[in-house]
Amino acid sequence: MDVRVVLLHPQEEGNIGSVARAMRNFGFSELYLVNPCELGRVARAFASHGTTVLEKAMIVHSLPAAVRGCSYIVGTTGKKGGHKTPKRKAPLTPEQLAGILPHDKTALLFGNEAYGLPNDILEQTDVVVRIPSNPEYPILNLAQSVCIVLYELAKKRFEKTVREKALTRELRAQLYKYTTEIVRRVYEQPHQQHAVDSTLRRIYGKSMLTEQEGRRIISFYRKIMRKL
Amino acid sequence: MDVRVVLLHPQEEGNIGSVARAMRNFGFSELYLVNPCELGRVARAFASHGTTVLEKAMIVHSLPAAVRGCSYIVGTTGKKGGHKTPKRKAPLTPEQLAGILPHDKTALLFGNEAYGLPNDILEQTDVVVRIPSNPEYPILNLAQSVCIVLYELAKKRFEKTVREKALTRELRAQLYKYTTEIVRRVYEQPHQQHAVDSTLRRIYGKSMLTEQEGRRIISFYRKIMRKL
Repeated sequence: MDVRVVLLHPQEEGNIGSVARAMRNFGFSELYLVNPCELGRVARAFASHGTTVLEKAMIVHSLPAAVRGCSYIVGTTGKKGGHKTPKRKAPLTPEQLAGILPHDKTALLFGNEAYGLPNDILEQTDVVVRIPSNPEYPILNLAQSVCIVLYELAKKRFEKTVREKALTRELRAQLYKYTTEIVRRVYEQPHQQHAVDSTLRRIYGKSMLTEQEGRRIISFYRKIMRKL
Repeated sequence: MDVRVVLLHPQEEGNIGSVARAMRNFGFSELYLVNPCELGRVARAFASHGTTVLEKAMIVHSLPAAVRGCSYIVGTTGKKGGHKTPKRKAPLTPEQLAGILPHDKTALLFGNEAYGLPNDILEQTDVVVRIPSNPEYPILNLAQSVCIVLYELAKKRFEKTVREKALTRELRAQLYKYTTEIVRRVYEQPHQQHAVDSTLRRIYGKSMLTEQEGRRIISFYRKIMRKL
Protein backbone atom coordinates (compact mmCIF):
# COMPACT_ATOMS: atom_id res chain seq x y z
CA MET A 1 0.00 0.00 0.00
CA ASP A 2 1.62 3.22 -1.18
CA VAL A 3 -0.73 6.09 -0.40
CA ARG A 4 -0.34 9.83 -0.88
CA VAL A 5 -2.81 12.10 0.90
CA VAL A 6 -3.62 15.19 -1.16
CA LEU A 7 -5.52 18.13 0.37
CA LEU A 8 -6.87 20.66 -2.12
CA HIS A 9 -6.93 24.27 -0.90
CA PRO A 10 -7.22 23.42 2.80
CA GLN A 11 -8.09 26.63 4.64
CA GLU A 12 -7.76 25.67 8.31
CA GLU A 13 -4.29 25.08 9.72
CA GLY A 14 -5.77 23.01 12.52
CA ASN A 15 -7.20 20.56 9.99
CA ILE A 16 -3.88 20.22 8.20
CA GLY A 17 -2.18 19.50 11.51
CA SER A 18 -4.87 16.97 12.47
CA VAL A 19 -4.46 15.24 9.13
CA ALA A 20 -0.70 14.95 9.72
CA ARG A 21 -1.34 13.42 13.14
CA ALA A 22 -3.88 10.92 11.79
CA MET A 23 -1.43 9.97 9.02
CA ARG A 24 1.24 9.16 11.59
CA ASN A 25 -1.32 7.28 13.73
CA PHE A 26 -2.10 5.01 10.79
CA GLY A 27 1.40 4.73 9.36
CA PHE A 28 1.21 7.04 6.33
CA SER A 29 3.72 9.77 5.59
CA GLU A 30 3.26 11.32 2.14
CA LEU A 31 1.24 14.52 2.35
CA TYR A 32 0.73 16.93 -0.57
CA LEU A 33 -0.95 20.28 -0.05
CA VAL A 34 -2.33 22.16 -3.07
CA ASN A 35 -2.35 25.91 -2.37
CA PRO A 36 -2.89 25.58 1.36
CA CYS A 37 -3.43 28.36 3.87
CA GLU A 38 -0.39 29.56 5.83
CA LEU A 39 1.04 26.91 8.12
CA GLY A 40 2.26 27.93 11.54
CA ARG A 41 2.00 27.29 15.23
CA VAL A 42 -1.60 26.04 15.13
CA ALA A 43 -0.88 23.41 12.49
CA ARG A 44 2.08 22.13 14.52
CA ALA A 45 0.03 22.02 17.72
CA PHE A 46 -2.70 19.94 16.05
CA ALA A 47 -0.11 17.68 14.43
CA SER A 48 1.27 16.73 17.87
CA HIS A 49 3.70 13.84 17.20
CA GLY A 50 2.73 13.96 13.54
CA THR A 51 4.91 17.03 12.93
CA THR A 52 7.38 14.83 11.02
CA VAL A 53 4.63 14.30 8.42
CA LEU A 54 3.79 18.00 8.42
CA GLU A 55 7.40 19.09 7.99
CA LYS A 56 7.91 16.81 5.00
CA ALA A 57 4.59 17.89 3.37
CA MET A 58 5.00 18.96 -0.27
CA ILE A 59 3.36 22.25 -1.14
CA VAL A 60 2.32 22.40 -4.81
CA HIS A 61 0.16 24.71 -6.89
CA SER A 62 -1.87 22.42 -9.10
CA LEU A 63 -3.64 19.09 -8.98
CA PRO A 64 -1.47 17.57 -11.76
CA ALA A 65 1.62 18.40 -9.69
CA ALA A 66 0.00 16.79 -6.65
CA VAL A 67 -0.85 13.49 -8.36
CA ARG A 68 2.32 13.18 -10.47
CA GLY A 69 3.61 9.62 -10.22
CA CYS A 70 0.33 8.18 -8.95
CA SER A 71 -1.24 5.26 -10.85
CA TYR A 72 -4.62 5.52 -9.24
CA ILE A 73 -6.59 8.57 -8.09
CA VAL A 74 -9.29 8.32 -5.46
CA GLY A 75 -11.71 11.19 -4.89
CA THR A 76 -13.77 11.67 -1.76
CA THR A 77 -17.14 13.30 -1.28
CA GLY A 78 -19.77 13.77 1.38
CA LYS A 79 -22.49 14.59 -1.09
CA LYS A 80 -24.85 12.33 -2.96
CA GLY A 81 -24.64 12.19 -6.74
CA GLY A 82 -27.33 13.27 -9.17
CA HIS A 83 -27.54 13.74 -12.91
CA LYS A 84 -25.06 16.58 -12.88
CA THR A 85 -22.50 14.71 -10.82
CA PRO A 86 -22.43 11.13 -12.09
CA LYS A 87 -19.10 10.46 -10.36
CA ARG A 88 -20.72 10.87 -6.98
CA LYS A 89 -23.09 8.03 -7.85
CA ALA A 90 -22.45 4.58 -6.50
CA PRO A 91 -19.29 5.54 -4.64
CA LEU A 92 -17.28 2.96 -2.74
CA THR A 93 -17.22 2.84 1.04
CA PRO A 94 -13.79 3.28 2.67
CA GLU A 95 -13.97 -0.43 3.52
CA GLN A 96 -14.53 -1.37 -0.12
CA LEU A 97 -11.63 0.87 -1.12
CA ALA A 98 -9.41 -0.99 1.35
CA GLY A 99 -10.41 -4.21 -0.39
CA ILE A 100 -9.37 -3.10 -3.89
CA LEU A 101 -6.50 -0.68 -3.27
CA PRO A 102 -3.60 -1.50 -5.60
CA HIS A 103 0.01 -1.74 -4.47
CA ASP A 104 0.97 1.07 -6.83
CA LYS A 105 1.07 4.64 -5.67
CA THR A 106 -2.43 5.92 -5.04
CA ALA A 107 -3.50 9.51 -4.43
CA LEU A 108 -6.38 10.13 -2.02
CA LEU A 109 -7.89 13.54 -2.77
CA PHE A 110 -9.77 15.55 -0.19
CA GLY A 111 -11.41 18.88 -1.00
CA ASN A 112 -11.60 22.18 0.79
CA GLU A 113 -13.47 22.39 4.13
CA ALA A 114 -16.28 24.54 2.77
CA TYR A 115 -17.02 23.08 -0.65
CA GLY A 116 -15.30 19.70 -0.93
CA LEU A 117 -14.04 18.41 -4.28
CA PRO A 118 -15.61 20.22 -7.23
CA ASN A 119 -17.36 18.15 -9.89
CA ASP A 120 -14.71 18.70 -12.57
CA ILE A 121 -12.06 17.24 -10.26
CA LEU A 122 -14.26 14.32 -9.19
CA GLU A 123 -14.71 13.50 -12.88
CA GLN A 124 -10.93 13.15 -13.24
CA THR A 125 -10.64 10.56 -10.47
CA ASP A 126 -10.66 6.79 -10.99
CA VAL A 127 -13.04 6.08 -8.18
CA VAL A 128 -14.96 8.05 -5.57
CA VAL A 129 -15.27 7.14 -1.90
CA ARG A 130 -17.99 8.24 0.49
CA ILE A 131 -18.16 7.55 4.22
CA PRO A 132 -21.49 5.99 5.30
CA SER A 133 -23.09 8.66 7.49
CA ASN A 134 -26.31 10.26 8.69
CA PRO A 135 -28.23 11.55 5.64
CA GLU A 136 -29.44 14.46 7.80
CA TYR A 137 -25.88 15.70 8.19
CA PRO A 138 -23.43 13.66 6.13
CA ILE A 139 -20.64 16.25 5.90
CA LEU A 140 -17.77 15.31 8.16
CA ASN A 141 -14.96 17.55 9.26
CA LEU A 142 -12.07 17.33 6.77
CA ALA A 143 -9.52 15.85 9.17
CA GLN A 144 -12.05 13.32 10.47
CA SER A 145 -12.81 12.17 6.92
CA VAL A 146 -9.12 11.64 6.25
CA CYS A 147 -8.81 9.87 9.58
CA ILE A 148 -11.62 7.40 8.81
CA VAL A 149 -10.38 6.57 5.31
CA LEU A 150 -6.83 6.00 6.58
CA TYR A 151 -8.13 3.96 9.51
CA GLU A 152 -9.94 1.61 7.11
CA LEU A 153 -6.90 1.32 4.86
CA ALA A 154 -4.61 0.54 7.79
CA LYS A 155 -7.02 -1.57 9.84
CA LYS A 156 -5.96 -5.02 8.71
CA ARG A 157 -2.29 -4.09 9.03
CA PHE A 158 -2.52 -2.85 12.62
CA GLU A 159 -5.14 -5.23 13.96
CA LYS A 160 -2.34 -7.32 15.41
CA THR A 161 -1.43 -4.34 17.62
CA VAL A 162 -4.74 -4.85 19.38
CA ARG A 163 -5.75 -8.46 19.04
CA GLU A 164 -4.09 -11.10 21.10
CA LYS A 165 -3.73 -14.76 20.20
CA ALA A 166 -7.09 -16.46 20.28
CA LEU A 167 -7.67 -19.61 22.29
CA THR A 168 -6.58 -22.62 20.24
CA ARG A 169 -9.04 -25.46 19.54
CA GLU A 170 -6.98 -27.72 21.83
CA LEU A 171 -7.09 -25.34 24.79
CA ARG A 172 -10.76 -24.69 24.14
CA ALA A 173 -11.40 -28.47 24.29
CA GLN A 174 -9.50 -28.60 27.59
CA LEU A 175 -11.55 -25.69 28.94
CA TYR A 176 -14.77 -27.48 27.98
CA LYS A 177 -13.57 -30.68 29.63
CA TYR A 178 -12.77 -28.92 32.93
CA THR A 179 -16.04 -27.01 32.81
CA THR A 180 -18.07 -30.20 32.37
CA GLU A 181 -16.14 -31.87 35.18
CA ILE A 182 -16.60 -29.06 37.66
CA VAL A 183 -20.27 -28.63 36.79
CA ARG A 184 -20.82 -32.37 37.41
CA ARG A 185 -19.18 -32.05 40.80
CA VAL A 186 -21.33 -29.09 41.83
CA TYR A 187 -24.76 -30.04 40.41
CA GLU A 188 -26.48 -33.36 40.88
CA GLN A 189 -29.38 -33.29 38.40
CA PRO A 190 -28.32 -34.09 34.82
CA HIS A 191 -30.65 -31.41 33.40
CA GLN A 192 -29.03 -28.78 35.65
CA GLN A 193 -25.58 -30.01 34.70
CA HIS A 194 -26.51 -29.72 31.06
CA ALA A 195 -28.03 -26.24 31.41
CA VAL A 196 -25.09 -24.75 33.31
CA ASP A 197 -22.51 -26.45 31.10
CA SER A 198 -24.09 -25.12 27.93
CA THR A 199 -24.55 -21.61 29.37
CA LEU A 200 -20.86 -21.48 30.26
CA ARG A 201 -19.90 -22.66 26.78
CA ARG A 202 -22.13 -19.99 25.27
CA ILE A 203 -20.39 -17.34 27.37
CA TYR A 204 -16.94 -18.61 26.36
CA GLY A 205 -18.05 -18.45 22.74
CA LYS A 206 -19.36 -14.91 22.90
CA SER A 207 -16.42 -13.49 24.80
CA MET A 208 -13.81 -14.13 22.12
CA LEU A 209 -11.39 -15.65 24.62
CA THR A 210 -7.70 -15.10 24.16
CA GLU A 211 -5.22 -17.85 24.88
CA GLN A 212 -4.19 -16.22 28.16
CA GLU A 213 -7.78 -15.83 29.31
CA GLY A 214 -8.50 -19.47 28.49
CA ARG A 215 -5.44 -20.64 30.43
CA ARG A 216 -6.47 -18.51 33.43
CA ILE A 217 -9.95 -20.07 33.61
CA ILE A 218 -8.53 -23.58 33.26
CA SER A 219 -6.09 -22.99 36.12
CA PHE A 220 -8.90 -21.44 38.19
CA TYR A 221 -11.09 -24.54 37.65
CA ARG A 222 -8.21 -26.87 38.50
CA LYS A 223 -7.66 -25.00 41.77
CA ILE A 224 -11.37 -25.34 42.60
CA MET A 225 -11.35 -29.05 41.77
CA ARG A 226 -8.47 -29.64 44.14
CA LYS A 227 -10.33 -27.87 46.96
CA LEU A 228 -13.61 -29.74 46.38
CA MET B 1 -28.38 0.69 19.53
CA ASP B 2 -28.67 3.15 22.40
CA VAL B 3 -25.30 4.79 22.93
CA ARG B 4 -24.21 7.55 25.30
CA VAL B 5 -20.86 9.20 24.66
CA VAL B 6 -19.13 10.17 27.91
CA LEU B 7 -16.07 12.44 27.90
CA LEU B 8 -14.12 12.55 31.16
CA HIS B 9 -12.51 15.90 31.95
CA PRO B 10 -12.13 17.04 28.35
CA GLN B 11 -9.87 20.09 28.34
CA GLU B 12 -10.12 21.39 24.76
CA GLU B 13 -13.36 23.05 23.66
CA GLY B 14 -12.51 22.32 20.04
CA ASN B 15 -12.46 18.60 20.78
CA ILE B 16 -15.83 18.72 22.50
CA GLY B 17 -17.28 20.56 19.51
CA SER B 18 -15.72 18.06 17.10
CA VAL B 19 -17.17 15.17 19.09
CA ALA B 20 -20.64 16.76 18.88
CA ARG B 21 -20.26 17.10 15.11
CA ALA B 22 -19.09 13.50 14.67
CA MET B 23 -22.01 12.32 16.82
CA ARG B 24 -24.48 14.09 14.54
CA ASN B 25 -22.64 12.73 11.46
CA PHE B 26 -23.17 9.20 12.70
CA GLY B 27 -26.64 9.65 14.18
CA PHE B 28 -25.89 9.75 17.91
CA SER B 29 -27.18 12.44 20.24
CA GLU B 30 -26.57 11.66 23.91
CA LEU B 31 -23.43 13.41 25.15
CA TYR B 32 -22.34 13.53 28.80
CA LEU B 33 -19.43 15.68 29.91
CA VAL B 34 -17.78 15.01 33.26
CA ASN B 35 -16.20 18.21 34.59
CA PRO B 36 -15.39 19.65 31.17
CA CYS B 37 -13.52 22.85 30.42
CA GLU B 38 -15.56 25.99 29.72
CA LEU B 39 -17.66 25.70 26.58
CA GLY B 40 -17.99 28.72 24.34
CA ARG B 41 -17.56 30.04 20.84
CA VAL B 42 -14.78 27.61 19.87
CA ALA B 43 -16.80 24.54 20.85
CA ARG B 44 -19.76 25.79 18.81
CA ALA B 45 -17.56 26.54 15.80
CA PHE B 46 -16.11 23.02 15.82
CA ALA B 47 -19.54 21.48 16.33
CA SER B 48 -20.80 23.09 13.09
CA HIS B 49 -24.23 21.52 12.46
CA GLY B 50 -23.71 19.34 15.52
CA THR B 51 -24.56 22.22 17.86
CA THR B 52 -27.90 20.52 18.65
CA VAL B 53 -25.90 17.71 20.27
CA LEU B 54 -23.66 20.20 22.07
CA GLU B 55 -26.57 22.23 23.43
CA LYS B 56 -28.28 19.15 24.85
CA ALA B 57 -25.03 17.82 26.39
CA MET B 58 -25.39 16.94 30.08
CA ILE B 59 -22.71 18.33 32.34
CA VAL B 60 -22.11 16.14 35.39
CA HIS B 61 -19.49 15.97 38.10
CA SER B 62 -18.80 12.28 38.58
CA LEU B 63 -18.50 9.12 36.57
CA PRO B 64 -21.39 7.38 38.40
CA ALA B 65 -23.63 10.30 37.42
CA ALA B 66 -22.46 10.00 33.82
CA VAL B 67 -23.18 6.28 33.48
CA ARG B 68 -26.42 6.20 35.47
CA GLY B 69 -29.00 4.15 33.60
CA CYS B 70 -26.43 2.41 31.38
CA SER B 71 -26.38 -1.41 31.33
CA TYR B 72 -23.01 -1.72 29.69
CA ILE B 73 -19.88 0.38 30.06
CA VAL B 74 -17.20 0.48 27.38
CA GLY B 75 -13.80 2.02 28.09
CA THR B 76 -11.36 3.17 25.44
CA THR B 77 -7.60 3.31 25.48
CA GLY B 78 -4.72 4.02 23.15
CA LYS B 79 -2.19 2.30 25.37
CA LYS B 80 -1.15 -1.32 25.55
CA GLY B 81 -1.84 -3.27 28.70
CA GLY B 82 0.74 -4.82 31.00
CA HIS B 83 0.71 -6.46 34.40
CA LYS B 84 -0.43 -3.30 36.14
CA THR B 85 -3.27 -2.64 33.72
CA PRO B 86 -4.92 -6.00 32.96
CA LYS B 87 -8.01 -4.29 31.53
CA ARG B 88 -5.97 -2.86 28.68
CA LYS B 89 -5.01 -6.41 27.70
CA ALA B 90 -6.83 -8.09 24.85
CA PRO B 91 -9.10 -5.15 24.10
CA LEU B 92 -11.73 -5.36 21.40
CA THR B 93 -11.38 -3.47 18.13
CA PRO B 94 -14.16 -0.95 17.37
CA GLU B 95 -15.36 -3.40 14.72
CA GLN B 96 -15.64 -6.21 17.26
CA LEU B 97 -17.51 -3.88 19.60
CA ALA B 98 -19.99 -3.14 16.81
CA GLY B 99 -20.56 -6.88 16.52
CA ILE B 100 -21.47 -7.42 20.17
CA LEU B 101 -23.07 -4.12 21.23
CA PRO B 102 -26.30 -4.81 23.13
CA HIS B 103 -29.56 -2.96 22.45
CA ASP B 104 -29.59 -1.65 26.01
CA LYS B 105 -28.12 1.69 26.87
CA THR B 106 -24.36 1.60 26.58
CA ALA B 107 -21.89 4.23 27.78
CA LEU B 108 -18.74 4.79 25.73
CA LEU B 109 -16.10 6.39 27.94
CA PHE B 110 -13.28 8.52 26.55
CA GLY B 111 -10.58 10.00 28.77
CA ASN B 112 -8.89 13.35 28.92
CA GLU B 113 -6.71 14.49 25.98
CA ALA B 114 -3.47 14.32 27.91
CA TYR B 115 -3.77 11.16 29.99
CA GLY B 116 -6.70 9.12 28.69
CA LEU B 117 -8.74 6.90 31.00
CA PRO B 118 -6.93 6.15 34.26
CA ASN B 119 -6.49 2.50 35.27
CA ASP B 120 -8.98 2.59 38.13
CA ILE B 121 -11.70 3.71 35.72
CA LEU B 122 -10.73 1.17 33.07
CA GLU B 123 -11.08 -1.52 35.72
CA GLN B 124 -14.70 -0.49 36.28
CA THR B 125 -15.69 -0.93 32.64
CA ASP B 126 -17.21 -4.07 31.14
CA VAL B 127 -15.00 -4.11 28.12
CA VAL B 128 -12.16 -2.02 26.68
CA VAL B 129 -11.80 -0.94 23.06
CA ARG B 130 -8.61 0.05 21.28
CA ILE B 131 -8.28 1.37 17.74
CA PRO B 132 -5.75 -0.56 15.65
CA SER B 133 -2.98 1.95 14.96
CA ASN B 134 0.70 2.53 14.37
CA PRO B 135 2.63 1.18 17.41
CA GLU B 136 5.14 4.03 16.92
CA TYR B 137 2.42 6.58 17.64
CA PRO B 138 -0.85 4.93 18.63
CA ILE B 139 -2.38 7.89 20.49
CA LEU B 140 -5.13 9.48 18.39
CA ASN B 141 -6.67 12.86 18.95
CA LEU B 142 -9.68 12.55 21.29
CA ALA B 143 -12.30 13.67 18.78
CA GLN B 144 -10.85 11.40 16.10
CA SER B 145 -11.01 8.41 18.43
CA VAL B 146 -14.66 9.11 19.17
CA CYS B 147 -15.27 9.60 15.45
CA ILE B 148 -13.78 6.22 14.53
CA VAL B 149 -15.63 4.27 17.21
CA LEU B 150 -18.96 5.90 16.25
CA TYR B 151 -18.24 5.35 12.56
CA GLU B 152 -17.80 1.62 13.19
CA LEU B 153 -20.94 1.42 15.31
CA ALA B 154 -23.03 3.25 12.67
CA LYS B 155 -21.42 1.76 9.57
CA LYS B 156 -23.87 -1.03 8.88
CA ARG B 157 -26.80 1.30 9.51
CA PHE B 158 -25.69 3.99 7.08
CA GLU B 159 -24.10 1.84 4.41
CA LYS B 160 -27.30 2.10 2.43
CA THR B 161 -26.72 5.87 2.18
CA VAL B 162 -23.68 5.07 0.04
CA ARG B 163 -24.24 1.74 -1.62
CA GLU B 164 -26.57 1.45 -4.53
CA LYS B 165 -28.44 -1.69 -5.52
CA ALA B 166 -26.05 -4.30 -6.83
CA LEU B 167 -26.56 -5.90 -10.19
CA THR B 168 -28.98 -8.83 -9.81
CA ARG B 169 -27.94 -12.32 -10.92
CA GLU B 170 -30.45 -12.10 -13.79
CA LEU B 171 -29.07 -8.83 -15.13
CA ARG B 172 -25.55 -10.10 -14.67
CA ALA B 173 -26.46 -13.17 -16.75
CA GLN B 174 -27.85 -10.86 -19.43
CA LEU B 175 -24.70 -8.77 -19.35
CA TYR B 176 -22.57 -11.90 -19.79
CA LYS B 177 -24.76 -13.05 -22.67
CA TYR B 178 -24.41 -9.74 -24.54
CA THR B 179 -20.71 -9.62 -23.84
CA THR B 180 -20.18 -13.10 -25.28
CA GLU B 181 -22.27 -12.22 -28.30
CA ILE B 182 -20.49 -8.98 -29.08
CA VAL B 183 -17.08 -10.55 -28.55
CA ARG B 184 -17.99 -13.33 -31.03
CA ARG B 185 -18.99 -10.74 -33.58
CA VAL B 186 -15.77 -8.79 -33.22
CA TYR B 187 -13.17 -11.58 -32.91
CA GLU B 188 -12.84 -14.59 -35.15
CA GLN B 189 -10.45 -16.91 -33.34
CA PRO B 190 -12.10 -18.89 -30.53
CA HIS B 191 -9.08 -18.46 -28.25
CA GLN B 192 -9.26 -14.69 -28.70
CA GLN B 193 -13.01 -14.75 -28.06
CA HIS B 194 -12.43 -16.72 -24.92
CA ALA B 195 -9.63 -14.45 -23.67
CA VAL B 196 -11.51 -11.19 -24.21
CA ASP B 197 -14.76 -12.58 -22.84
CA SER B 198 -13.14 -13.77 -19.65
CA THR B 199 -11.17 -10.53 -19.20
CA LEU B 200 -14.38 -8.52 -19.47
CA ARG B 201 -16.10 -10.78 -16.93
CA ARG B 202 -13.18 -10.37 -14.58
CA ILE B 203 -13.48 -6.58 -14.86
CA TYR B 204 -17.23 -6.71 -14.21
CA GLY B 205 -16.57 -8.84 -11.18
CA LYS B 206 -13.96 -6.55 -9.69
CA SER B 207 -15.87 -3.35 -10.27
CA MET B 208 -18.81 -4.20 -8.01
CA LEU B 209 -21.33 -3.14 -10.65
CA THR B 210 -24.54 -1.48 -9.53
CA GLU B 211 -27.80 -2.27 -11.25
CA GLN B 212 -27.74 1.05 -13.11
CA GLU B 213 -24.17 0.52 -14.31
CA GLY B 214 -25.06 -2.97 -15.52
CA ARG B 215 -28.08 -1.69 -17.42
CA ARG B 216 -25.96 1.03 -19.04
CA ILE B 217 -23.41 -1.45 -20.37
CA ILE B 218 -26.14 -3.77 -21.66
CA SER B 219 -27.83 -0.92 -23.53
CA PHE B 220 -24.44 0.21 -24.89
CA TYR B 221 -23.71 -3.31 -26.20
CA ARG B 222 -27.17 -3.54 -27.77
CA LYS B 223 -26.56 -0.24 -29.56
CA ILE B 224 -23.24 -1.54 -30.86
CA MET B 225 -24.84 -4.82 -32.01
CA ARG B 226 -27.41 -2.96 -34.01
CA LYS B 227 -24.72 -0.92 -35.77
CA LEU B 228 -22.57 -3.96 -36.57
